[in-house]
Amino acid sequence: VARQHQAALEQRLAGFHPADIAFVLESLEPEPRDLAWSLVRPERRGAVLLETADVVRRALVCHMPADEVADVVRPLDPEDIAELIASLPEESRRAVLERLDQADLAEVRSVLSFPEDSVGAAMDLDFVSVREDASLEAVQRLLRRRKELPSHTNELIVVDRANKLRGFLPISRLLLGEPESTVGEQMSRDPVFFYTDDRMQEAVTSFEKYDLVSAPVVNLHDQVVGRITVDAVVDAIAERAQTEGLRKVGLSGEDEDLFAPIRHAARRRWPWLAINLLTAFMASRVIGAFEHTIGALVALAALMPIVASIGGNSGNQSVALVIRGLAMNQLGPSQLRRILVRELGIAVINGLVWGFVLGVATFVLYGDPKLALVIAAALTLNLLVAGFVGVCAPAALHRFGRDPVMGSSIVLTATTDSMGFLIFLGLAAAFLV
Amino acid sequence: VARQHQAALEQRLAGFHPADIAFVLESLEPEPRDLAWSLVRPERRGAVLLETADVVRRALVCHMPADEVADVVRPLDPEDIAELIASLPEESRRAVLERLDQADLAEVRSVLSFPEDSVGAAMDLDFVSVREDASLEAVQRLLRRRKELPSHTNELIVVDRANKLRGFLPISRLLLGEPESTVGEQMSRDPVFFYTDDRMQEAVTSFEKYDLVSAPVVNLHDQVVGRITVDAVVDAIAERAQTEGLRKVGLSGEDEDLFAPIRHAARRRWPWLAINLLTAFMASRVIGAFEHTIGALVALAALMPIVASIGGNSGNQSVALVIRGLAMNQLGPSQLRRILVRELGIAVINGLVWGFVLGVATFVLYGDPKLALVIAAALTLNLLVAGFVGVCAPAALHRFGRDPVMGSSIVLTATTDSMGFLIFLGLAAAFLV
Repeated sequence: VARQHQAALEQRLAGFHPADIAFVLESLEPEPRDLAWSLVRPERRGAVLLETADVVRRALVCHMPADEVADVVRPLDPEDIAELIASLPEESRRAVLERLDQADLAEVRSVLSFPEDSVGAAMDLDFVSVREDASLEAVQRLLRRRKELPSHTNELIVVDRANKLRGFLPISRLLLGEPESTVGEQMSRDPVFFYTDDRMQEAVTSFEKYDLVSAPVVNLHDQVVGRITVDAVVDAIAERAQTEGLRKVGLSGEDEDLFAPIRHAARRRWPWLAINLLTAFMASRVIGAFEHTIGALVALAALMPIVASIGGNSGNQSVALVIRGLAMNQLGPSQLRRILVRELGIAVINGLVWGFVLGVATFVLYGDPKLALVIAAALTLNLLVAGFVGVCAPAALHRFGRDPVMGSSIVLTATTDSMGFLIFLGLAAAFLV
Repeated sequence: VARQHQAALEQRLAGFHPADIAFVLESLEPEPRDLAWSLVRPERRGAVLLETADVVRRALVCHMPADEVADVVRPLDPEDIAELIASLPEESRRAVLERLDQADLAEVRSVLSFPEDSVGAAMDLDFVSVREDASLEAVQRLLRRRKELPSHTNELIVVDRANKLRGFLPISRLLLGEPESTVGEQMSRDPVFFYTDDRMQEAVTSFEKYDLVSAPVVNLHDQVVGRITVDAVVDAIAERAQTEGLRKVGLSGEDEDLFAPIRHAARRRWPWLAINLLTAFMASRVIGAFEHTIGALVALAALMPIVASIGGNSGNQSVALVIRGLAMNQLGPSQLRRILVRELGIAVINGLVWGFVLGVATFVLYGDPKLALVIAAALTLNLLVAGFVGVCAPAALHRFGRDPVMGSSIVLTATTDSMGFLIFLGLAAAFLV
């Protein structure tokens, strides 16, 4: 019965799109996953691996001998082979490379040589180029000899004799133009193009802005070496979006693997917890310096976390606005100054409003008007600190080439906690005790 | 001289892509922005408005009389007019609609009738459809009569006599196929398509998965009414990514307008601050209940924020993982159970490790072994609470159709703060004082 069941499953998987099989594999636990994987037909395994998340892909490939991996990837395009191989451990990568054909090998190596996150590493090597002096009719004849066009071919790339980029010919103009006219007459001369070592982020920005489907990629001699297509751009945007939430709390894409051993997962979180423990400890030392004050008026201990916590929440709003502005490239120095003035203004307004609310609540609870005044003042001052650090921390991290998404909240919370305690307890020591 | 300067600027703007003009406008402060806007040629203003962020667009349009707005949008496609008009205040929307031509009006109204965030609201009404029995040659002849194809036309939509979807004919097959063969012979019969009231998120998922450039949109009678194209999908992904960071701290896309009055901006942040003030107040009341304990051992006041804060940090890591899993549709009930067990396991390991570190630090500072034990135990227990809430809060919010990105951190921090204080002070009251 089990065998019948398997045969039926194999049959069903054969009708699935590789992306759907990848989805199934990602959702399965290791053992059923290996079983399902064995039911995927060998000739489709390469396409499925391409669609699978990195961690799952690595888990699947690690169990396969190098010969088998080589067989699986051989039918793929060189850039896809490179993408797969890049996620393998160093030694199995070499073993697979040794088993590839010479022609593929050169191309795979060239793609692998581009830095991760560069246009070169994400480009498609397969494209159709034509010369300016060809007639549309001749181009159509030429194309008919191919059985199909590379995917996402919405334009042919026009090059000169030295393979240098001259322009592009939209497929629609090839279809609609006079067959006797030449490529040079019909083409557009101002193509958006990228260099192999441009960062993917630049491609993302241009594709978003100009609604592109594909764009040529050239080397340093302006020779066309490939195309970047919108599906790679979509993947890059989605990848960036998905990792942002993780980066914000000190995790990386590797932490998405639900099936890695718990020990390793726990250890990967140590740096983040260590930094936060350190900042919490600093804040705790600030409180420690006021133990005498708290001993004299214990109500302070209950109230002080409120001042610190609202500061953190308010500052995180400033951080989010600045990070969004930075991501959209909309914050020059004059905008930053403007945003800073603005956030400080908002801090004053909200400090007075919520300081008043908190002061009244404190007075109702403790019946001490001076305590109420102190907490209202402390809240306002800490919101000002939060607004200042909330704007400056991400801007400074960005300026110095660090990741503002990851560092800002640490810097902010460290400041709003310590300063919140310092301001509140300091005012209390001066005016109350 | 100023006039010469303006003429030169006008000249330069005329050479810009509308998206680049929009970028310039978004980066300017209100006064120079209005000046620059007046230099954009009237016939290009519609295209520029389309590329501009919502808030800036609204600011620009608000100063224009309805007649002028109608003139500006009239040359645009109906779906673009609808997009522009949707961002106008109710009464100017009506005024502009009244000034449109009858033909456009009907289409604009139909697009406006789809809910925001639906495929219908984002679809392109311009598409080319053909019948199965036409020959490729006839189709090519038909296309030549048009001067150009709608943008992102990588396939023609094949429909029957009743305009029902039958399949699609990739442009490449139109180019490469035998001219005498029919559309029916060359077309693909299994198109990915969407209903007008599908949510954009579904389109995003399919486009990512299957690397689409465009896909037909049908109404409830399976009749083709438009196309959804990859540029709309890219916009949707980017939009979602950019608002996630803002939603996490209780802001909306509206808060990106740096030039709105500060009073309004301050007020928009009140709900978030109010909720957080409330949860901080609850945590404060927990501390208040232990004032007697703190009075007896003031060191507790300095140490208690550490326990609460590490709990929040650790829990936010669980939240980020669950939210990412939910966004990728990878968390069924069995995965959720697995992730919960996993996070609790990680919490135990990290609780013991960092509880030990914190215990040693406490012992060094205060020389009190019992205090060290209590804080180590409290940290471990609070990490368990954080792991539990960090997994369950986003999962529950998602299950009940609420936004897990926005609500999770509030629920989490409220719990880890209150429970952190309760556990630590409770243990201290029981074993120390």
